[in-house]
Amino acid sequence: MCGRFFLALEFRPKHRASTLKHEGLSLAKPNDTNEEDMARNITKRDNDYSKWYHDVIKAAELADYSPVRGCMVIRPNGFALWEGIQRDMDRRFKETGHVNAYFPVLIPVSFLAKEAQHVEGFAMECAVVTHSGLGKSEDGKSLVARNQLEEPLVVRPTSETVIGHMYSEWVQSWRDLPILINQWANVMRWELRTRLFLRTSEFLWQEGHTAHETAEEAQEETLRMLEVYRAFAEDYLALPVLTGEKSARERFAGANHTYCIEGLMQDGKALQAGTSHNLGQNFSKAFNIEFEGRDQTRQHVWTTSWGVSTRLIGALIMTHSDDEGLVLPPKVAPTLGAIVPIYKKDEERESVTEFARKLLAQLCGDDELSAADTRLGNREVFKCFFDQISGQSVALDQRDGMRPGDKHFFWEQRGVPFRFEIGPRDVQSGSVVVKSRLDGSKEILKLEEITADWFRAKLDAFQVALYERALAYREENTHVATTKDELYSFVKEKGGFVRCFLKEDDALEDQIKGDTKATVRLIFSPDADARHPMSAASGKCVMTGEDVSREVVIAIAY
Amino acid sequence: MCGRFFLALEFRPKHRASTLKHEGLSLAKPNDTNEEDMARNITKRDNDYSKWYHDVIKAAELADYSPVRGCMVIRPNGFALWEGIQRDMDRRFKETGHVNAYFPVLIPVSFLAKEAQHVEGFAMECAVVTHSGLGKSEDGKSLVARNQLEEPLVVRPTSETVIGHMYSEWVQSWRDLPILINQWANVMRWELRTRLFLRTSEFLWQEGHTAHETAEEAQEETLRMLEVYRAFAEDYLALPVLTGEKSARERFAGANHTYCIEGLMQDGKALQAGTSHNLGQNFSKAFNIEFEGRDQTRQHVWTTSWGVSTRLIGALIMTHSDDEGLVLPPKVAPTLGAIVPIYKKDEERESVTEFARKLLAQLCGDDELSAADTRLGNREVFKCFFDQISGQSVALDQRDGMRPGDKHFFWEQRGVPFRFEIGPRDVQSGSVVVKSRLDGSKEILKLEEITADWFRAKLDAFQVALYERALAYREENTHVATTKDELYSFVKEKGGFVRCFLKEDDALEDQIKGDTKATVRLIFSPDADARHPMSAASGKCVMTGEDVSREVVIAIAY
Repeated sequence: MCGRFFLALEFRPKHRASTLKHEGLSLAKPNDTNEEDMARNITKRDNDYSKWYHDVIKAAELADYSPVRGCMVIRPNGFALWEGIQRDMDRRFKETGHVNAYFPVLIPVSFLAKEAQHVEGFAMECAVVTHSGLGKSEDGKSLVARNQLEEPLVVRPTSETVIGHMYSEWVQSWRDLPILINQWANVMRWELRTRLFLRTSEFLWQEGHTAHETAEEAQEETLRMLEVYRAFAEDYLALPVLTGEKSARERFAGANHTYCIEGLMQDGKALQAGTSHNLGQNFSKAFNIEFEGRDQTRQHVWTTSWGVSTRLIGALIMTHSDDEGLVLPPKVAPTLGAIVPIYKKDEERESVTEFARKLLAQLCGDDELSAADTRLGNREVFKCFFDQISGQSVALDQRDGMRPGDKHFFWEQRGVPFRFEIGPRDVQSGSVVVKSRLDGSKEILKLEEITADWFRAKLDAFQVALYERALAYREENTHVATTKDELYSFVKEKGGFVRCFLKEDDALEDQIKGDTKATVRLIFSPDADARHPMSAASGKCVMTGEDVSREVVIAIAY
Repeated sequence: MCGRFFLALEFRPKHRASTLKHEGLSLAKPNDTNEEDMARNITKRDNDYSKWYHDVIKAAELADYSPVRGCMVIRPNGFALWEGIQRDMDRRFKETGHVNAYFPVLIPVSFLAKEAQHVEGFAMECAVVTHSGLGKSEDGKSLVARNQLEEPLVVRPTSETVIGHMYSEWVQSWRDLPILINQWANVMRWELRTRLFLRTSEFLWQEGHTAHETAEEAQEETLRMLEVYRAFAEDYLALPVLTGEKSARERFAGANHTYCIEGLMQDGKALQAGTSHNLGQNFSKAFNIEFEGRDQTRQHVWTTSWGVSTRLIGALIMTHSDDEGLVLPPKVAPTLGAIVPIYKKDEERESVTEFARKLLAQLCGDDELSAADTRLGNREVFKCFFDQISGQSVALDQRDGMRPGDKHFFWEQRGVPFRFEIGPRDVQSGSVVVKSRLDGSKEILKLEEITADWFRAKLDAFQVALYERALAYREENTHVATTKDELYSFVKEKGGFVRCFLKEDDALEDQIKGDTKATVRLIFSPDADARHPMSAASGKCVMTGEDVSREVVIAIAY
């Protein structure tokens, strides 16, 4: 642990250790809004879940729609969550032997066409670049495209094709395998109906692309990355997920097997939060990725791909947040705690501030605070690093002209796990009111009890409690159906996950979707996750009554 | 310091602390190439500098041309350099109060048109998206663009316009200012003549975009970020740079003032390595970024933008590398040292390996090596973290079937700062041959002398020596011209930077460029860098003989 202090809103470097941070857009202006007004900026979940979702994003300033149809702007508060996700996930990728690289954003149309299923899946979603310059229109009033390209290019919807092409140049021998590359990038899939983070025309993601000597190694890699995703979702984002295989209907265009992690949102809808694909030799045959094997024969490599995206931020919001706004698991929260001093008179101000500063220093396990502390003033949010590597901090909100109630809402709506309130009477009694964002519970503690170790333990407990609350919600909303009527009534009346046995038949899936909008989210697979075994080795198909060994989870999905 | 060990080429997690890393493409295959053959894969600088540059990139596997015209693929070894640059620079941005965000990759053509100079500067370089889907052509043989968009979009060449639009929505009052946002992103500028890292149609960069209440604050920010770039280039990449202002001819399209850091490459050509622009109110007027001031009047904000790109990797190569291949400053080198054990007989192998493992443990300041060490085997490169936060490591190259000479070239061409050679006789004498990549010098040290502290000091000295070597080269190749003849002969015969006084006149710059291909790289500016004062308050213009107060640096540039 390492406590370093920095001021927001002013650029005043003091010494190297004292860093400064400006919250830019995230600081609300002092205004006359009262608590009731601020609370009303978020629709209640029960009234309109979809509006609630957008209200939470707006109140926390996570993202905004852009002037480009279907594309979002990820604002600094939202991007900080993506930076946290990237930091933790990138570490997990490197620990499992992967390296990062970068491939072109534009892909020749003829490349897409090389894998038949792939092009079918993505052709209609592509943004197409046809020209390489702009010139004045004939009437001179507007700009039009000039210099038509010989072959159109698409903005990558995913990069199997261009990466496949490069691998065909790089791989000669079995000694060049495996190739274990990941890319952090933007991708574009033209969408008609969009929703911030969940479905936008452009989004940020990572895409892993690996090439292997044998089918077995490719399958091992596919499942290894599924497990990386599961562990990341559960340990870091506190999102309980089911893991399993997608049905043929829901498979990635060009994959032999698609595995997924699947979460359950608070409105009973499922959300696919990450996928891992075994691509077999489909792309290696389309792109001639050949190597000389140990037996000196020419062979095609076996490839995988896997990805998660900024959609995870949507999952985070819809799993943990509440009617007051954003709730963040401590591991991903940029600000872990906010101290709000409360005073009316000038003489109170001084003693409350001094007490608050002591608290900040204790929370961050640092006693340098007094040295860097001469500049506290109006409109400033003074911050201190709780963890210098992750950049997570504790804030002391000393903004003048802003009422304590407004400050409470400010930090609450941004999902800060703990709030510390200090008034003149608290100073007298040497105590602090600690409010948890988990459930709004308050406790009063003596200043000396609130140490960095105490805080770390509180944060750990918060993280676990958040996961357990989400897990309990999923368990309560997972139903077992044995007949079609049960399946349909669960889907239509209760929502949530419905477990049932289902024969492998696209037509049955189409029928269920047509009748209820629900889809097969995953097939239980002993390969994919030992923690969620099938109910039984076999059971009666919920639609046909036939005895089948295929158990699935059905739900309406985002 | 923290030493943690990981194996390359195999995925075998042991415990959380023992991470694993696969070098993928960066491991050469064992083959029969001898040392002379390998040396010949890099053209000598004196023979053909441009070919040398590409040979160095190829030998180190930093980048490759892609099938998309003018776009490069950044391979894992090259991307690791970009990750190092991002890590260090992002920290500097955050220390100066900036936050990251993300804006759309596609920009409406009408946005570009709003700022007259801006559109003129970028129109012909734009990749234009005109359609939103693909369909079969009439003959059914190929794919063609479908669904023409109402308004064409361009792939961002830079983001002032779309960010300006968002700022106009976000800013209402002086209390919302400043906005200090940075974006890490890919951008596209259609280029006809490309060169890996230096000039490609797509490249990766960061672009800072800030909005301020006053002209003074915007100018302060512009110069602050110029200084961040200077300090980063010199401290982290060991690139000596001059700082100054660009002439009107070379200014960013839409800026009032453009400042730059400018390096001198080994072939005597200049390279612009980063720019910081004061955009005045040009974009705030074009995009109506207005706020209510402290005096309650409506005012336009003052904006800046600043960027560096993957071009820095080109600067790194052309400043430090030599005829043997890549040379990297220790701060950015992913692998800091490589241990090459040398043996012929099996009984030698055992003792050499044991000795090498002791060295690895000592170098990394760790004594856990024996615990994680049971898996060493054929084809493996065993690695140990020297610095866990930066991910920099030391490698023990135990690959069988590869001759020591080939291993030496392997690590040398990848720019690893230090190589440690251990043969049977070294084991007997308890010593190690240490070879520096800086100048090829060798020293023989006792094993017990080679500790982590020793290594850190060696790396620091290497970093300083690299900077000083580059600085000395620049000083030797900076000439002062007082007449046109001198200027022209310096540019044509000697290359390098030429300092001279020059009247402010576009026509004079055009004349110099027409005659010599050289351009004004920067104007000395007391604002921009106190370390490089002007030669005098005024002097005679090198072209007209008039007395002027404007001293410039002229050079042929990349």
